[in-house]
Amino acid sequence: MIELSIFNILDLLGTIAFAISGALSAMNRRLDLFGIFIIAFVTAIGGGTLRDVLIGSTPVNWMENIIYIYLIGTVTIFSIVFRNKLNYLKKSLFLFDTIGLGVFTITGVEMGVKNDLDPIISIALGAMTGTFGGVIRDILCNEIPVIFRKEIYATACIIGALAFVILDSFEVSTDITYIATSLTVIVIRLLVVKYHISLPSFYPSPRS
Amino acid sequence: MIELSIFNILDLLGTIAFAISGALSAMNRRLDLFGIFIIAFVTAIGGGTLRDVLIGSTPVNWMENIIYIYLIGTVTIFSIVFRNKLNYLKKSLFLFDTIGLGVFTITGVEMGVKNDLDPIISIALGAMTGTFGGVIRDILCNEIPVIFRKEIYATACIIGALAFVILDSFEVSTDITYIATSLTVIVIRLLVVKYHISLPSFYPSPRS
Amino acid sequence: MIELSIFNILDLLGTIAFAISGALSAMNRRLDLFGIFIIAFVTAIGGGTLRDVLIGSTPVNWMENIIYIYLIGTVTIFSIVFRNKLNYLKKSLFLFDTIGLGVFTITGVEMGVKNDLDPIISIALGAMTGTFGGVIRDILCNEIPVIFRKEIYATACIIGALAFVILDSFEVSTDITYIATSLTVIVIRLLVVKYHISLPSFYPSPRS
Repeated sequence: MIELSIFNILDLLGTIAFAISGALSAMNRRLDLFGIFIIAFVTAIGGGTLRDVLIGSTPVNWMENIIYIYLIGTVTIFSIVFRNKLNYLKKSLFLFDTIGLGVFTITGVEMGVKNDLDPIISIALGAMTGTFGGVIRDILCNEIPVIFRKEIYATACIIGALAFVILDSFEVSTDITYIATSLTVIVIRLLVVKYHISLPSFYPSPRS
Repeated sequence: MIELSIFNILDLLGTIAFAISGALSAMNRRLDLFGIFIIAFVTAIGGGTLRDVLIGSTPVNWMENIIYIYLIGTVTIFSIVFRNKLNYLKKSLFLFDTIGLGVFTITGVEMGVKNDLDPIISIALGAMTGTFGGVIRDILCNEIPVIFRKEIYATACIIGALAFVILDSFEVSTDITYIATSLTVIVIRLLVVKYHISLPSFYPSPRS
Repeated sequence: MIELSIFNILDLLGTIAFAISGALSAMNRRLDLFGIFIIAFVTAIGGGTLRDVLIGSTPVNWMENIIYIYLIGTVTIFSIVFRNKLNYLKKSLFLFDTIGLGVFTITGVEMGVKNDLDPIISIALGAMTGTFGGVIRDILCNEIPVIFRKEIYATACIIGALAFVILDSFEVSTDITYIATSLTVIVIRLLVVKYHISLPSFYPSPRS
């Protein structure tokens, strides 16, 4: 059984958030019950699975904690029952997606730090962990991965992961580090979208 | 050299079945000789490779048994030579695909059980092992993965995997368990397709 | 720190080549700064990552050598700054892609040989290592993987890998083996493209 530390609570919140975002994507593609569950599952565990496989921590995380499958199953059913309300609340979906992004980025960078990897590598691992679930979801649903679109999705990840590495090097308490860095990712992403901030474009303006 | 137990015979049958289904898909996309071999290979070994990577059983299975490459190479050539007859026998392709699904599901759930994973996790691992080769094949051939379409593909997997876990817990002889559960998957899938059974839809009927 | 043997020089050259090809693909899709970096990164490290994961050599290579991230970051910026000249030099891109293909094929087959895998398996591992980065790049950029198109991309890989296994079995000095086999791959691919050699087609000519 997993202990309910701050980290685990955030991890479960992220899992719920990503599972909902996966289920909504799948319902937009009119998939059947199992299709919805599978996309929800892959979106929720994809990033952590990539993290575990790359670092060699196998069997991967979701295999050793039965709670993930039950949680994602419950979220799938919840998403189907309340699908009209969830679709209405598209902004909430965006928020969920952002929470998942923040939390999973931290789990990745933390595992890098624990394994004595270079801080830059840990940040890259964090960014992959945060974004890979969504990339898989989008590839399976045959959409261009959201991470490559205009919103500076990955930037938020990378800055949050950087914050983690810095706080960790000052030996700030882990609970505070987790919360602060998750919030960093979430706040940056919300600001970016609210104020339409985007990375400098170096393409000529599109043909019009 | 691998011993020819019931399990290995089923595994080789599944490999042949999936390799044929991959080769046919590739020929439908008019790929060249190596393209056909690669798609056949990836379809045949994709599920087992995912299973081994997730559980940490590396080098993965096909690397340690040279027979897979020879078998898939032979099947590729066979599929090319008899491509007109195979395309004519589309129903056989469907049957092959179903055999592969049944067999690989069992190999995944069995590895989960052997590694003392929770039964639910073992079932999920079985379903992934059974379906992943086909998902990869479809992504590479730029089609919507068959698993997400109407036929209840994954359901058959999951029920078969459940049967395996139950039989295994009663310590039924392994050969009987293998055959019974493989047949369960195959029979369910055939029935589902024959009688057009589908999971309850919760979408409004499509615009017409 | 990695030592600068012939092998490492080739490996870094291949990384640069693949990163450039990834960055150019991403710019053709008009991705933003991080999108370009991510595609460059994945293209450059994808094949080696697959190789390491399949064989169980984790944490994967790029995690333990910080130089890859710096190198790919530098290449990304270079590619963006000189994007007009690079696009003008499409033939150079093709050459880079070929160098990467040759070099990474060798790293894969070598790891297979070192792990006492069967020569045929080592060749397959080499071919996967050489081609997977490009496949991932093409899938993420929503194109049909170049490896499945007409140029006999994979054939060059496989012949080069075969040369490696043969030279290695005669205990030729490793530096010579590396250079000879990389050149084999590169020369074959260039010849194939220059003289429009293609594998025999067994399809009726396309509808016209």
